[in-house]
Amino acid sequence: MVTKLEGAVNCLVTVFHKYSLASGHYHTLSKDKFRKLLETEIPEVLKNPKDPKTVEKILKEVDSNKDGMINFEEFLFLATRLLVDAHDATHE
Amino acid sequence: MVTKLEGAVNCLVTVFHKYSLASGHYHTLSKDKFRKLLETEIPEVLKNPKDPKTVEKILKEVDSNKDGMINFEEFLFLATRLLVDAHDATHE
Repeated sequence: MVTKLEGAVNCLVTVFHKYSLASGHYHTLSKDKFRKLLETEIPEVLKNPKDPKTVEKILKEVDSNKDGMINFEEFLFLATRLLVDAHDATHE
Repeated sequence: MVTKLEGAVNCLVTVFHKYSLASGHYHTLSKDKFRKLLETEIPEVLKNPKDPKTVEKILKEVDSNKDGMINFEEFLFLATRLLVDAHDATHE
């Protein structure tokens, strides 16, 4: 039986692969697929998900090795930011 | 509608609070409740979840401010390790 924590961890890996596989790179997301992930998975969080500048800004922050692609560790940087924000929101 | 990514993020926050509330500290886990979380939520990952040394070892690694309690950021350090391991496992 998969526990809640294991289920959430597996779900985050699955979400990443849903978009990385779609960009043909099992290990990384293309900029386009990263935009798709943001628009689809966290529309609420993005002030204006359809605004290219919003995506560019987040891409710049997340793409730490500056290769124009998002690998899993870089995706985790985004996920960790979302987790901190979600946790803070529960204490407001 | 909550997306998969949002659902997984909320689930991780809920798991943390399930054990932090049980230790009466909304923001932190006591050592005992951290042990309970490990035993219940990631029994597979722990070589021997019932071995106090296993828990002590992980607690030492995760408790970065050395206060004997686990706050949410320290919990995220554990969650990130689990995420990296889970992702690596999909590429084996």
